[in-house]
Amino acid sequence: MGLIRFESDYTEGAFPGILERLIATNNEQTPGYGEDAHCKNAAGHIRRYCGAADADVHFLVGGTQTNLTVIGALLKPHQGVISAHSGHIATHETGAVEATGHKVLILDSPDGKITGAQTDAFCQAHYSDANHEHVTQPGMVYISHPTENGDVYTKSELSRLREACDKWGLYLYMDGARLGYGLAASGYARVSDKELVSVPGREPAERLTLPDIAALCDVFYIGGTKNGLLFGEALVINNPALRPDFRFHAKQRGGLLAKGFLLGIQFRALLEGGLYFDLARRANEMATLLTGGLKKAGVAFLVETETNQVFLYVDEERLKLLEEKILFERWAGECEKGTPIRFVTSWQTTVEEIEAVLGLFDI
Amino acid sequence: MGLIRFESDYTEGAFPGILERLIATNNEQTPGYGEDAHCKNAAGHIRRYCGAADADVHFLVGGTQTNLTVIGALLKPHQGVISAHSGHIATHETGAVEATGHKVLILDSPDGKITGAQTDAFCQAHYSDANHEHVTQPGMVYISHPTENGDVYTKSELSRLREACDKWGLYLYMDGARLGYGLAASGYARVSDKELVSVPGREPAERLTLPDIAALCDVFYIGGTKNGLLFGEALVINNPALRPDFRFHAKQRGGLLAKGFLLGIQFRALLEGGLYFDLARRANEMATLLTGGLKKAGVAFLVETETNQVFLYVDEERLKLLEEKILFERWAGECEKGTPIRFVTSWQTTVEEIEAVLGLFDI
Amino acid sequence: MGLIRFESDYTEGAFPGILERLIATNNEQTPGYGEDAHCKNAAGHIRRYCGAADADVHFLVGGTQTNLTVIGALLKPHQGVISAHSGHIATHETGAVEATGHKVLILDSPDGKITGAQTDAFCQAHYSDANHEHVTQPGMVYISHPTENGDVYTKSELSRLREACDKWGLYLYMDGARLGYGLAASGYARVSDKELVSVPGREPAERLTLPDIAALCDVFYIGGTKNGLLFGEALVINNPALRPDFRFHAKQRGGLLAKGFLLGIQFRALLEGGLYFDLARRANEMATLLTGGLKKAGVAFLVETETNQVFLYVDEERLKLLEEKILFERWAGECEKGTPIRFVTSWQTTVEEIEAVLGLFDI
Amino acid sequence: MGLIRFESDYTEGAFPGILERLIATNNEQTPGYGEDAHCKNAAGHIRRYCGAADADVHFLVGGTQTNLTVIGALLKPHQGVISAHSGHIATHETGAVEATGHKVLILDSPDGKITGAQTDAFCQAHYSDANHEHVTQPGMVYISHPTENGDVYTKSELSRLREACDKWGLYLYMDGARLGYGLAASGYARVSDKELVSVPGREPAERLTLPDIAALCDVFYIGGTKNGLLFGEALVINNPALRPDFRFHAKQRGGLLAKGFLLGIQFRALLEGGLYFDLARRANEMATLLTGGLKKAGVAFLVETETNQVFLYVDEERLKLLEEKILFERWAGECEKGTPIRFVTSWQTTVEEIEAVLGLFDI
Repeated sequence: MGLIRFESDYTEGAFPGILERLIATNNEQTPGYGEDAHCKNAAGHIRRYCGAADADVHFLVGGTQTNLTVIGALLKPHQGVISAHSGHIATHETGAVEATGHKVLILDSPDGKITGAQTDAFCQAHYSDANHEHVTQPGMVYISHPTENGDVYTKSELSRLREACDKWGLYLYMDGARLGYGLAASGYARVSDKELVSVPGREPAERLTLPDIAALCDVFYIGGTKNGLLFGEALVINNPALRPDFRFHAKQRGGLLAKGFLLGIQFRALLEGGLYFDLARRANEMATLLTGGLKKAGVAFLVETETNQVFLYVDEERLKLLEEKILFERWAGECEKGTPIRFVTSWQTTVEEIEAVLGLFDI
Repeated sequence: MGLIRFESDYTEGAFPGILERLIATNNEQTPGYGEDAHCKNAAGHIRRYCGAADADVHFLVGGTQTNLTVIGALLKPHQGVISAHSGHIATHETGAVEATGHKVLILDSPDGKITGAQTDAFCQAHYSDANHEHVTQPGMVYISHPTENGDVYTKSELSRLREACDKWGLYLYMDGARLGYGLAASGYARVSDKELVSVPGREPAERLTLPDIAALCDVFYIGGTKNGLLFGEALVINNPALRPDFRFHAKQRGGLLAKGFLLGIQFRALLEGGLYFDLARRANEMATLLTGGLKKAGVAFLVETETNQVFLYVDEERLKLLEEKILFERWAGECEKGTPIRFVTSWQTTVEEIEAVLGLFDI
Repeated sequence: MGLIRFESDYTEGAFPGILERLIATNNEQTPGYGEDAHCKNAAGHIRRYCGAADADVHFLVGGTQTNLTVIGALLKPHQGVISAHSGHIATHETGAVEATGHKVLILDSPDGKITGAQTDAFCQAHYSDANHEHVTQPGMVYISHPTENGDVYTKSELSRLREACDKWGLYLYMDGARLGYGLAASGYARVSDKELVSVPGREPAERLTLPDIAALCDVFYIGGTKNGLLFGEALVINNPALRPDFRFHAKQRGGLLAKGFLLGIQFRALLEGGLYFDLARRANEMATLLTGGLKKAGVAFLVETETNQVFLYVDEERLKLLEEKILFERWAGECEKGTPIRFVTSWQTTVEEIEAVLGLFDI
Repeated sequence: MGLIRFESDYTEGAFPGILERLIATNNEQTPGYGEDAHCKNAAGHIRRYCGAADADVHFLVGGTQTNLTVIGALLKPHQGVISAHSGHIATHETGAVEATGHKVLILDSPDGKITGAQTDAFCQAHYSDANHEHVTQPGMVYISHPTENGDVYTKSELSRLREACDKWGLYLYMDGARLGYGLAASGYARVSDKELVSVPGREPAERLTLPDIAALCDVFYIGGTKNGLLFGEALVINNPALRPDFRFHAKQRGGLLAKGFLLGIQFRALLEGGLYFDLARRANEMATLLTGGLKKAGVAFLVETETNQVFLYVDEERLKLLEEKILFERWAGECEKGTPIRFVTSWQTTVEEIEAVLGLFDI
């Protein structure tokens, strides 16, 4: 066994079934720019899973591209987008949102979530400032589910945030780069699923499902790149006011793929049998298995593991040992508990790999 | 035989060998964002073909994305980019360049080319205007090879344009979405090729080769999407002043693919045996075959066929007949010669398809 | 008498009465950013002259600033603004509109006007293009009254253009840098004026008045810099949908003057007794006087003089003679009739200056 | 005596001598756009005061416009500007910098200053991040002198910051909206001044003079709007690499005033006899007088008064009393010491006004 890669969930190609579908359809001649039967079919699956019969679905290549296109399209020039300080648009997109002309309005957040109360307080302060015309107007809330720290929103948290958005005239946009893992974390698997995994400390009523998300967010995307596809993100626009002309925006930002059918083919294969949910659940289970073992070894964690990301502290000696065998990322926040690191599982992670890792913790 | 697709060269998947390589490498775990061995290897091939040992090579997903990233990165805020009125950035990118803040400075051009003399005259007029500080400053010339009309630059034309760019302090950027067809049009096939196809009316010394292009342009790209790949464009930055920090720009515009290795794998397969040149030559040959047949049938052409695009006039009756059997695009410029239409061939075009089309012209 | 300045209408300070008002109010202490009593009062005059009781009025410093702020605020990211090829935003603002992210969509126009029929044809072509999502969407028509060539719109021309804008969902924006001269050209002076100057070849019903403009345009501005003020343009937003939040946009673009009261004081003085119309009419009369004399001398004109700009052809010998005594601009369009030049009159132009100029034409 | 206005230093017109100069020159006919003799003369004064014989000087209308034009012109697209969290560009310009495409990189700062050590630490962290290409690159440090809190930089502080900027390839830009007050705070008055006011706790060698600022900053501006002018800011570009083409940028952002001579006339009058420094010193003296009186009354201050801004705490009762007689701003930071408020003096503030205010504090 070479180095075990726990760096991220985008270090390998596609789930084999996806690639097989690309091979099977390779000789078809298909209209360009996403106006083909595969895209239509995949969009139909998404509308069905979301319980959103009228939603518009667009397929884009990557997450930063999706974020900048959506935010640039929806905000008015004098508006900014509220984000947690750790939000992807705030930290890891080289100022992509600002390059479209909009300020990212940063709120501190220990778990990477934006709450309704926080949004209320921020907007209250903005509008009660006599000089608020000299300050960027909040126009949207950007959240990730799960957050950059692997935390997940509950249904009541998201409902409360929606309430705040309605009160202050804000769009609610969810970055779903790892949405599958967030859905699986809440125990939701697929429409027909009867048995739901019980998450400790969460009431079943608090599970956030795809229909909940579709009902509560104006716009969100279902990330494929990090969950089984070669590449691809499916954007769902539920707010009718935001649907017209999105293809113009996508083209303008370089996001309208010439061979758009490649996205349709992949998403169709990913969705039609619920593979999307299966792959995410599988990765989450591996992370749970890993976490369970580490707990036995007395390891300290930055946050409770809920999805496919495990955040833990290690001491210097262990760090060196791990670095010889595993590829992973160091995280910010060194403290007396040790150096924080992140392990990310994927559909490809095996029980053998988990056991090998646990072996390095003397288990 | 169903409808024959002569609409464009991006209506099918990839050349089988490309797909096979993606399958063969699918289980590899690879660093993200283009910092992997496949990208390095493919970049090496490109430097070798270009005779440009120091050039920077970056892999991007699509043409509009490449254009907007390069132009946005290189120009200063008060500068604009010179383009033929028919240039892709001027007509078919939904204002992507303007969205980065830059004006497209339009020059009329019957064949879609920008000449050195035209550039001299434009800049002369700009700088001799007493109020030129009130006018967008030209900062770059954008050209396509071949042009939107299928015309190709000769070596002396491009050299003369370079001279004008040097005189006026302009970058020269070549959009190579269909570069392979342009290279094959000039009779250039691959480095080791001894027999060059003779192009009527062109001196061998006028052939524009990849090393010529690399030497004469500051930046250009080698298009893969329209010549055998699932997707991908390889950007070559030859001017040393423009090399630093390009990855920042790509990330900011949403162009840094998470699984960048997919681009490296594909370009490696496309380049290592000269497949890129073979596929383009094959498509050009099909277009030449088609053109020859149509000439016998007395058809009138908009421009001489030099690459994989055939532009011809048809009358109303023929148009209806063709529309029943073939998918193709109507072109602008209806006149007494008839309705202009475009047939595009690709590596997938067969002699049988050409014969079937010619049959519709009573040949 | 030194050199006579016929270069432009912004080469001197303010009409004395304006300056006196600034002196008289200098010691007042006044709230900043245009929220003072002078601005309110001036806005009231404008609403009354326009017959637009609900219009929003904002005071800005200059024309380019006003144009870029309005166009940047109103268009959606994928939209562009239609302009005549000679429009100020297309030629003399260093790409200010493009710097806000929007393409200027150029229509050829011999007289600098955009017609309704032209707009219909352009939009018809745009929306009938199967690939129109790849093309900048027209979102606004930008016109100047008078145009850069000194031409004026008639009431029926502007009504017809409004019709086209309604049909295609376009905003209509009028740049009124020299609006006073345009209004005076149509014989309109002030609300209480009974005697209107008759313009040859124009029916009285064709006179375009301020209430007409307010009723037909979504947004327009009343230029002060070129008609009596030190500086200042008054923007009138009549379309209710466009009124909210404009002050945010102005602040963001650097257009919200700290001492905004300076604009209010000046416009109040300019408007309350109809001075604005008197100054423009005076300048137009001087241009008419000059034109009449030149006609007697057999001079050829580029366009009929209707406002304070006189466009004429002169031969080489006359040109040299004039350049010794007068400051003026050469214009584009050299031909067998001679070199085109422009004389601009203002409220400061005297009959003696006109006579001195005519003397150089041997009259 | 009506309400005493201590709201800000831009609530009245101009110092009478400035207005007189505008009257005296009103009938001159002058070239537009700042290319006149007054601007040249005023620029000469500035170069002389700065000891910067080669610096470029440009005159702009307002502070936000100056900031957005400079920052937009100097940064590359992937770069951001470092600012204190309380910096004007970060808080009170409605996202003007972001609208030019650049992120404002916020550093916390209790006194509104950015230190060299802080800059080193921030850049060190940026460049040691393996993924720094996914993060906005720092390209400039923006500071204000005095800061938003009325603090001033010492010579060694600014020298140390320059050192950090040199180390990390950053431009240093100083917003001088209230520069005069900052210069006077350090005891610097004018070139010929022999007696310098001694500031408690500051060594003479620590005084920051105009030549120091010109030598240490790449670009800065000398604010006129808040120190005697109707309006106007004088931008000084000392770094030779940044001088070319600035007028293009100014025009593009709407900052090239048609009657630019109005700025030249005002600055000439403000500078030629050192009036600029006298007015600022006068205002600072009034603030010092006010502070001295308030100290006797046992009032608590947010920061030591060094310029024309006095930040103090008041209790509820006093607040009500003051609000009946004085116009002033509430400041952020309510605490057990009371409600923070700000009094701003100007050249127009009289000893009688100071005494009247102190009377409200029972002195």
